[in-house]
Amino acid sequence: MTTFVDHASAIDELKAALGEKVSVNETIREHHSKDESFHTPRLPDAVVFATCTEDVATVLKICNKHRTPVVTWGAGTSLEGNSNPIHGGVSLDLSQMDKVLRIGHADLDCTVQPGVRRKQLNEVLSTHGLFFPVDPGADATLGGMAATGASGTTTVKYGAMKQLVMSLTVVTPSGDVIVTSRRARKTSAGYDLTHLFVGSEGTLGVITELTLRIFGIPEAIAAATMQFATVRQAVDGVIEVIQLGIGVARIELLDSDAVMAVNKYSQTNLPEKVLLLLEFHGSAESNAIDIAAIREVLERYSGTDFTQTTDESERRKLWQARHDTALACRSLVKNARNFATDVCVPISRLSDCIEATQKDLAESQLFGPIIGHVGDGNFHVVFSVDPDDHSMVERMEEFHTRLVGRALSMEGTCTGEHGIGVGKIDYLVDELGNEAVGVMATIKKALDPNRIMNPGKIIADTFF
Amino acid sequence: MTTFVDHASAIDELKAALGEKVSVNETIREHHSKDESFHTPRLPDAVVFATCTEDVATVLKICNKHRTPVVTWGAGTSLEGNSNPIHGGVSLDLSQMDKVLRIGHADLDCTVQPGVRRKQLNEVLSTHGLFFPVDPGADATLGGMAATGASGTTTVKYGAMKQLVMSLTVVTPSGDVIVTSRRARKTSAGYDLTHLFVGSEGTLGVITELTLRIFGIPEAIAAATMQFATVRQAVDGVIEVIQLGIGVARIELLDSDAVMAVNKYSQTNLPEKVLLLLEFHGSAESNAIDIAAIREVLERYSGTDFTQTTDESERRKLWQARHDTALACRSLVKNARNFATDVCVPISRLSDCIEATQKDLAESQLFGPIIGHVGDGNFHVVFSVDPDDHSMVERMEEFHTRLVGRALSMEGTCTGEHGIGVGKIDYLVDELGNEAVGVMATIKKALDPNRIMNPGKIIADTFF
Repeated sequence: MTTFVDHASAIDELKAALGEKVSVNETIREHHSKDESFHTPRLPDAVVFATCTEDVATVLKICNKHRTPVVTWGAGTSLEGNSNPIHGGVSLDLSQMDKVLRIGHADLDCTVQPGVRRKQLNEVLSTHGLFFPVDPGADATLGGMAATGASGTTTVKYGAMKQLVMSLTVVTPSGDVIVTSRRARKTSAGYDLTHLFVGSEGTLGVITELTLRIFGIPEAIAAATMQFATVRQAVDGVIEVIQLGIGVARIELLDSDAVMAVNKYSQTNLPEKVLLLLEFHGSAESNAIDIAAIREVLERYSGTDFTQTTDESERRKLWQARHDTALACRSLVKNARNFATDVCVPISRLSDCIEATQKDLAESQLFGPIIGHVGDGNFHVVFSVDPDDHSMVERMEEFHTRLVGRALSMEGTCTGEHGIGVGKIDYLVDELGNEAVGVMATIKKALDPNRIMNPGKIIADTFF
Repeated sequence: MTTFVDHASAIDELKAALGEKVSVNETIREHHSKDESFHTPRLPDAVVFATCTEDVATVLKICNKHRTPVVTWGAGTSLEGNSNPIHGGVSLDLSQMDKVLRIGHADLDCTVQPGVRRKQLNEVLSTHGLFFPVDPGADATLGGMAATGASGTTTVKYGAMKQLVMSLTVVTPSGDVIVTSRRARKTSAGYDLTHLFVGSEGTLGVITELTLRIFGIPEAIAAATMQFATVRQAVDGVIEVIQLGIGVARIELLDSDAVMAVNKYSQTNLPEKVLLLLEFHGSAESNAIDIAAIREVLERYSGTDFTQTTDESERRKLWQARHDTALACRSLVKNARNFATDVCVPISRLSDCIEATQKDLAESQLFGPIIGHVGDGNFHVVFSVDPDDHSMVERMEEFHTRLVGRALSMEGTCTGEHGIGVGKIDYLVDELGNEAVGVMATIKKALDPNRIMNPGKIIADTFF
């Protein structure tokens, strides 16, 4: 691929245009050199803190002229090196663009800047009785979540970013500002640019504003847990729940290793068996109907020790523990960083896929707790690794390749929600083939002919 | 734009490759010259009846070599000239690719060929207790529905084609066959090619297989109607219903002119006031809760004469009458064809938009019954016109321009579900601007450099 060399003249021009928003400070550059993954850090040549769409347009125009890479930065919580500036250049930090611009009560939508974090958004929305459901483990930015195509524990009911982004303001590599869609609930007006940018990981443009679907906070929320001796029992139960269309807002699986890690980290004392965590959103009446229906199904699949609560602090503790699973696993290894896996298969194949993966873990003598968004067929083997432990990284990579091969053989995908980044570039070709990835490369080359936008991500260098 | 001239040598080559699947019969060409709209018919130079993906690839390779336009044909039920071969060339008829290939009970998905029609699919699915919800008025093909980005009366609950297409097999203009996504329920693997082709109206490639989300037929279905003196009362009631998150599967509005037309055509005797038609999908218990809640809300907005039924034949009659509205309106005008309007606005602006539109109708002395998918903010003024009545067509076009301007001023779109076709090309630029349409044109030029795929649709000639 193009060799990216000295970007001094681009940085000079950026400083002339944007003054103190441009930093070459070593500590700041180091902070922008890596996400939460084990992938190799690389210092950007400069960091630009944009505060508005015009700043972003200025950065892209200057960098496009100088062919300087631009890697967008939100919270740095991605898990596949998505925001690592692997070819140097500019890390474009949008964290100061953190305003909630509009809340549409009647239309159940809102417009936010890309640096707004999901917890911050929900704090603002909650004062209006509203919420935004997508909840990746980390407190990510909405811009990053859209760019990654993120999802979370509530996707089974409310959908992922793909379903909930209604419109985006995007700055194209040449510095043009476009709005991808109007604010109507649906549209058939031309190519779906919204979905083209959702999940494009900053390789086609920079998202500077998002209009999102939001929801009323349910009248009643209830959580429940149930235990199983085997993953297969739990997952087969979940399949029937989904088939029957029982209203469930969250249906998450933790295997016994994950429960053990969570207990240690979060001072919970959950039983160290296969655990399903469930949540129901509705009225007290409808939740009661759904809980009774789901319990009946899961007991037929040998689920035991049913518990339920409507107490908010108990619920929050339970879900915080679930969200902290990655941290919990990381705390077990010295100098650890995340080695995330993220396969997603048709739910009918989920038991097969997890069982074979557990067998592989045992045979490989690798410790990898499993957590799953089982209603969607998506699960993570949560590896933690010291990046300097090269032989362990290599063993995990070999395992990951087997895991992806297994998921693909079951009509699944290598990534349900983390994106391709630098870690799954070859798997993307295995998954969709040279022709489909070739179509992606054709689009990339047409929209970003100088290949300045997050180069080295999603599409292999061989396509250029 | 490129002038498309004689395609004789392309047709000779097609005949050599595909034999009797290629027809130049006048009657057959005439049948493929127009959709259901008033837009000017144009005979294709030939019609090819493809029976498999390989046939489609053969057609595209040959036509790409000869720069012969290819316009894909399903059921010919589009409403904006989307399938009219306005530059001649080949009409590629996929109606013989009409097999339901796979039904995934456990995964609630199915795979179909593009020529399968929606009623046919639901007949097959119903024997398994399953259904596919998207229901445009016509008995369209699934391929056409995906290409148009169609939706229908159940979109408020289940989503539109955009939400329910999981994966597509597509033949690109150069004849490559790609699959846009795996069969997992969610994925973040690369650019979202699925959504790029959904709604692209055959301008980027030809869909030859679709994997769709399907649903279990609800345990209980109930329909209800309610009457209102004004559109504002009805729509303001609907806004509150949506805000409260009351579970409704269909919530359709007919104004009194639409009810009158339906009564005449379908021998129903619905009261000729503003009518809301509602449907509820759930259990008998959950439907009863939802119906009580919705009735309470709508009565506060002066809704009267509440009726409800769970009788299947009554329900079917009601929805068939609703689906026949366009036919009903057409039956009132001699030699009439459809002049469809399709704006969609944020629901908070829907009363304003419909009221102003009714006023405009009265002032313009145009008869235009209004039907609306009001839960989505989408409504149609259902014009019927004799295409040879040029002065009437012109008056309707002027009205349409005012209607679109009104919707755009309310942050809406010119098309909620019919697509751009030939009728809304200029509105697309008004709606999204030159830069955004320019991005679409860049993609089009990159993927279809010889501009053979349905030329003259979606993107104005001035972009080429």
